[in-house]
Amino acid sequence: MSNSIKSSSNKPTSIAEVKALADAILAKDRTALSKGITLIESVREDDRLLAAHLVEHCLPHSGNAIRVGITGVPGVGKSSFIDVLGTHVCSLGYQLAVLAIDPSSEKTKGSILGDKTRMEALATEPKAFIRPSPTSGSLGGVARRTHDSILLCEAAGFDIIFVETVGVGQSETAVHSMVDFFLLLMLSGAGDELQGIKRGITELADAIVITKADGDNKASAERAAQIYQDALHLFPLAADGWKPLVQTASAQDKTGIDATWQTIQDHHQLMLENNILAAKRKTQAKFWFDTTLKDLLVDRFLKNQSEADKYLQAEKAVENGETSPLLAILRLLGMA
Amino acid sequence: MSNSIKSSSNKPTSIAEVKALADAILAKDRTALSKGITLIESVREDDRLLAAHLVEHCLPHSGNAIRVGITGVPGVGKSSFIDVLGTHVCSLGYQLAVLAIDPSSEKTKGSILGDKTRMEALATEPKAFIRPSPTSGSLGGVARRTHDSILLCEAAGFDIIFVETVGVGQSETAVHSMVDFFLLLMLSGAGDELQGIKRGITELADAIVITKADGDNKASAERAAQIYQDALHLFPLAADGWKPLVQTASAQDKTGIDATWQTIQDHHQLMLENNILAAKRKTQAKFWFDTTLKDLLVDRFLKNQSEADKYLQAEKAVENGETSPLLAILRLLGMA
Repeated sequence: MSNSIKSSSNKPTSIAEVKALADAILAKDRTALSKGITLIESVREDDRLLAAHLVEHCLPHSGNAIRVGITGVPGVGKSSFIDVLGTHVCSLGYQLAVLAIDPSSEKTKGSILGDKTRMEALATEPKAFIRPSPTSGSLGGVARRTHDSILLCEAAGFDIIFVETVGVGQSETAVHSMVDFFLLLMLSGAGDELQGIKRGITELADAIVITKADGDNKASAERAAQIYQDALHLFPLAADGWKPLVQTASAQDKTGIDATWQTIQDHHQLMLENNILAAKRKTQAKFWFDTTLKDLLVDRFLKNQSEADKYLQAEKAVENGETSPLLAILRLLGMA
Repeated sequence: MSNSIKSSSNKPTSIAEVKALADAILAKDRTALSKGITLIESVREDDRLLAAHLVEHCLPHSGNAIRVGITGVPGVGKSSFIDVLGTHVCSLGYQLAVLAIDPSSEKTKGSILGDKTRMEALATEPKAFIRPSPTSGSLGGVARRTHDSILLCEAAGFDIIFVETVGVGQSETAVHSMVDFFLLLMLSGAGDELQGIKRGITELADAIVITKADGDNKASAERAAQIYQDALHLFPLAADGWKPLVQTASAQDKTGIDATWQTIQDHHQLMLENNILAAKRKTQAKFWFDTTLKDLLVDRFLKNQSEADKYLQAEKAVENGETSPLLAILRLLGMA
C-alpha cells in the first residue's frame, strides 16, 4: 500500500513508465491508481495509447469486483446514501472504490462535481477510494474511460466498485453497460421530482431504494416502496430472472443500509450461480468494443478541420430538414 | 394515382430515372412508391446512392403525416389490432401506410414476416398501403431504411404512418427515434408474456392498449388497464408533458378502437400546440445523421476483407477478456 512508483508525479510518457505504473497499481499503490485514472481521463491523443497499454497490463488482474451503478436525481440524497452504504461495506472488510460519471453539460454542471467533501465518513475511511468525476469530454468518451477506470480499480484490489451518475441524461444507459447491478434512488413523493429522470431508467433498475425514510417521512416512504414494488411486477424482468426489489433507507438513521447491501449480494450470488455474470460482462465488452470503434472512426474522420466544418454544416442542414441524413453523410464521406 | 412511371419494373439505375420515380411517387403512384421502397431496402452500394437521391427529392414534400409506432410481443394480437385500427382510420378519410421493422434474426424470424394476409380488411382497403417487412440487413440499417421509407410514404400523400415492431429486440429504441407516438400493446394476464419484451419499453410508451378485451376477458382487461394506469403515474413523464394513457380494446368486437385513435390525435394536437413536434423531429434527424455517419464509417472500414477478419479476431479477444476494447480498436485502426 505504501509502495510509491519510481517516476515523478507527472503522467507516464513511455511504455516502460506505463509498465512501472501498472506494477505499482497491482501492488495496491493508491497514488499510482490515481495517476493511472488521470492518464485514462486525459483527452490527449498520445496519452490515449499509453492509457490503453496501462489497461491492458491491468486487465488480467481485473474482473473480481462487484460493480454497482447508483443513480438518482439531485436532491435524492445520493451522496449521503453512498457515504453510509460505502461505510457499511468497508466495515465488513471490503475495499471500496467510488467513481462518478458526469459528462460536463450545462444541464448537470455542478450537480455532481463530486469531491470527497460530499462523503464525509468515506473520505476518512482507509478502505475507501473516492475518485472525483471527470469534468470534460463527450459522454461516450467519459463512459468508456470510466469502464477502464473500473478495471484499474479491480487490478488495485478493490472488491466493490460504485459508479455514481446523476440520472438525468444519457449516462444511465452507458453505466448500465458497465455494472453488474443497477440501483435507482428515489424520494417518496413520487411525481414532480421524477420529471428529470430519463424515461426507461426505472425499468432498468435491479433495485429501487426510497431514500430519506426517517422521521415524518418514514410512513410515506414505506407506502411508496409498496406501490413501486407492486408496479414493478407489471414490467418485464431482466434476462437473468432477477426480480427487482424496492426498499427504504435512511442515511440519517442508518436504517435499510444492510438490507440494500444484502440485496446486492443476493443478486450477485444469483448471477454467479446461473453463469449470468460472465455472459453479461462478455456482452458489455462487446458493447464497448463496438462503441469504441465507432467513436474512434468518427474522431479520426473529424480530426481534419475542413471535415469538421463540413460536418457541422451538414448537421445543421439535416436538422433543418434541408437534406436527408443519408445523402448528407454520403456527401460528407465523398461517396456522393 | 394511375400514373405509371416511364421506366420498366426494374429498379432505377440512373439519377434521371430516380427523378422520374420521385415524380411518380409525388403523383401518388403506388407502384412507384413500392419500387422506391425496394430501392431504399436494397443493400447494394450503388443502389444506396440512388436511394439517397430519391429520398432527397421527396424530402421537401414529407413531414405532414402522423407517425405512429406500434409494438407488442407475438400473441398480443398486433395484426388484428392494426387491421381494425387502420380500417377505422381509413373510414375517417385518411390515407394510411403500414410499414414493419423486423431485422432478420433467429429470435424473431417468422413472427412478423408480415404480408397482407395478416391484415385482411386493410388489404382490400383502397386508402391503405401495406408494406411487408424487409427481411435482411442489420437492425441499424433496417431502421434507417424504414425512416427513409416513412419520408417516401409522406411524399406520396399518406396522412398516417404505422410502423410495426415485434417488441422483443433492439428495434423499439430505433422506432422510438422515428415516430411521433409510441403505442404498446399488452395482454391482460400481466406476467409471463412480458418476459420477451425489452426492458425500458413500457416507460417509453405514450399509450398502452390492453388487447383482446372481449368476452370472458373483458373484466380482467379493464382491471389490468387500471393497474397499469396507476403504475404509469409513478414513472417519469416525457419531456413533452404528455401523460401516458392505458386503454382497452377488442379487435374482435371493434371496441376501444376509436378511443385509441382519439388518444393519438390528442397527443398530436398537444405536440403541435407546444411546438414539440418540430423539435422532436429535429432531434430525430440529428440522431439518424449521427447513426448513419457511424454505420457508414464502420461499413467502409470493414469493407476490406482483411480488416473484417481482423475485426472478428479482435472482437473475440475482447469478449474473452484477452484484450481491452480500447487497445484492440487502436490496433485495428493502426493507431497502436
